[in-house]
Amino acid sequence: MKELSSLLGYRKEIKVVDATLRDGGLVNDFHFEDDFVKSLYMTNIRAGVDYMEVGYKASKEIFDPKKFGKWKFCNDEDIRKVIGDKNPAIKLAAMADVGRCDYKHDIKDRKSSPLDVIRVATYINTIPAAIDMIEDAKKKGYEVTCNIMAISNAQEGDIKVALEMLCQSPVDVIYIVDSFGALFPEQIQRIAHLYSEYCTKYNKEMGIHTHNNQQLAFANSIEAIGDGVNWVDATYAGMGRGPGNCSMENLLGFLRNPKYNLFPVIQFIENYMIPLKESGTMWGYDLQYLMTGILNQHPRTAIEFTKQKRKDYIEFYREIMAQD
Amino acid sequence: MKELSSLLGYRKEIKVVDATLRDGGLVNDFHFEDDFVKSLYMTNIRAGVDYMEVGYKASKEIFDPKKFGKWKFCNDEDIRKVIGDKNPAIKLAAMADVGRCDYKHDIKDRKSSPLDVIRVATYINTIPAAIDMIEDAKKKGYEVTCNIMAISNAQEGDIKVALEMLCQSPVDVIYIVDSFGALFPEQIQRIAHLYSEYCTKYNKEMGIHTHNNQQLAFANSIEAIGDGVNWVDATYAGMGRGPGNCSMENLLGFLRNPKYNLFPVIQFIENYMIPLKESGTMWGYDLQYLMTGILNQHPRTAIEFTKQKRKDYIEFYREIMAQD
Repeated sequence: MKELSSLLGYRKEIKVVDATLRDGGLVNDFHFEDDFVKSLYMTNIRAGVDYMEVGYKASKEIFDPKKFGKWKFCNDEDIRKVIGDKNPAIKLAAMADVGRCDYKHDIKDRKSSPLDVIRVATYINTIPAAIDMIEDAKKKGYEVTCNIMAISNAQEGDIKVALEMLCQSPVDVIYIVDSFGALFPEQIQRIAHLYSEYCTKYNKEMGIHTHNNQQLAFANSIEAIGDGVNWVDATYAGMGRGPGNCSMENLLGFLRNPKYNLFPVIQFIENYMIPLKESGTMWGYDLQYLMTGILNQHPRTAIEFTKQKRKDYIEFYREIMAQD
Repeated sequence: MKELSSLLGYRKEIKVVDATLRDGGLVNDFHFEDDFVKSLYMTNIRAGVDYMEVGYKASKEIFDPKKFGKWKFCNDEDIRKVIGDKNPAIKLAAMADVGRCDYKHDIKDRKSSPLDVIRVATYINTIPAAIDMIEDAKKKGYEVTCNIMAISNAQEGDIKVALEMLCQSPVDVIYIVDSFGALFPEQIQRIAHLYSEYCTKYNKEMGIHTHNNQQLAFANSIEAIGDGVNWVDATYAGMGRGPGNCSMENLLGFLRNPKYNLFPVIQFIENYMIPLKESGTMWGYDLQYLMTGILNQHPRTAIEFTKQKRKDYIEFYREIMAQD
């Protein structure tokens, strides 16, 4: 039985991270209205959410600012203009991708920025570049997480090396990221145990970020919580790339810390998320994402299938089966 | 770590039960076309599904046969007409509800029926009536399961008494039924352990039937498999009351026994389930079902909310919060 089997209690170290703008932004190219963002911020505070990820720190050389909404770049002044005076009840985070950001220039000192946390996203084969970014962000005063993407495709031996390297760095939190939504809870347990061998020794926190390809985003998140993971990503109505992420409403329905409050989450979903979906923004579980999840493939083929409004699932399955 | 952590292996005792017609029938009053049923039968055989539940044995006094499709009643001759010659690769089951069937009259000897399994559905407070039905079905030659509904509302002390009584009966399989979709995997584990104390001693099999209120139907099913449960219910595209059940496509994507085959399942979903949904038949995860699941309430209010095509989730949450 897991520690959290006593489901009536709670672990105060758990931190809920709202990733709606960041992972959800991948769905609408970060074109969120200011009112949406401001209301999300106020909702997160009322709901007791601990961190709000407002988007990416993406390179303006690689990504054309005319083609994307401002949350792709998260300029400090844009954040300030929309959020207004910062409420100390919630901290703000932004993600920086290895190889896709100009972190030395674009990430300013924490003292002069509304951001509190830099989340460094990396594949397992670019850990040294990630560590350079971690050190840079740490020097600038931020809390820093490192999100190892596509962990379902990484070999255990490589994960061990990566964890050893990261644990020698000043990073605060190391994330398990199931980018392909390919993992079952038992595999999450196994990976969390592997992570915790290192994280316990070096006093690092663990985090979890899931995708809903197999309808397991929430289940895998609470599995991870039971395995000692303290930082948990969720998004309103599960908004995120492809089948989306662990839903905030599911997660807050599970956590027993009285600081969390489900009611404002439901209000925000009715007032903002459902209209967003009805306006044509597409995310959420569907058969094509299940298929790429089962096959442990990147969801890009399924996203393209969705964009083209294809309905020939059988043919799609034939196509992706033939790819391997 | 669970036994099935070695996810590359499999347990040959596992039986997959297709409950599409039975739980799905609750959504469309059992008005399935003959072609749908026949094709589902052929698909199940190709997919390696072990049992197909074709509907209920409901009382024609209590339920008007003019108002429901034939799978509410499962007359032997109706089954024979649609299925044709029985293929020994798959067994047929029907459900009989305590207090809502004339089992002594309507359930004929197995020798003269196309059915192989009678599934007795009961609440925890009607176990003696269930046992009478179990004994009747057993005498008539059937495999018999007992499905204890709404287990999330039952007290552990009562479950123990019920299990002891059932284990003294000739029942073959005792089911955990999460009717309200209220349970988390850790609670499934706890209940499965409780069941197995009795089932192991008396040599009974355990089964699991889940609902997807909290997006945990599949997760709870594989949790149960890891806990020693061998009979697992699933439905195509998750079709079932309210938010539906564990999806067949999820389950067969998880099981490693080479007898199971996902491809025909996808074919059936594209050819039959998606058109069924597009024709207006409503089931599947939505916020109103999450709310009743979190509150461990019967989904009837959420089903009514759905039928009325209401979208005022906030008001609905207020209503059901006030009920307790």
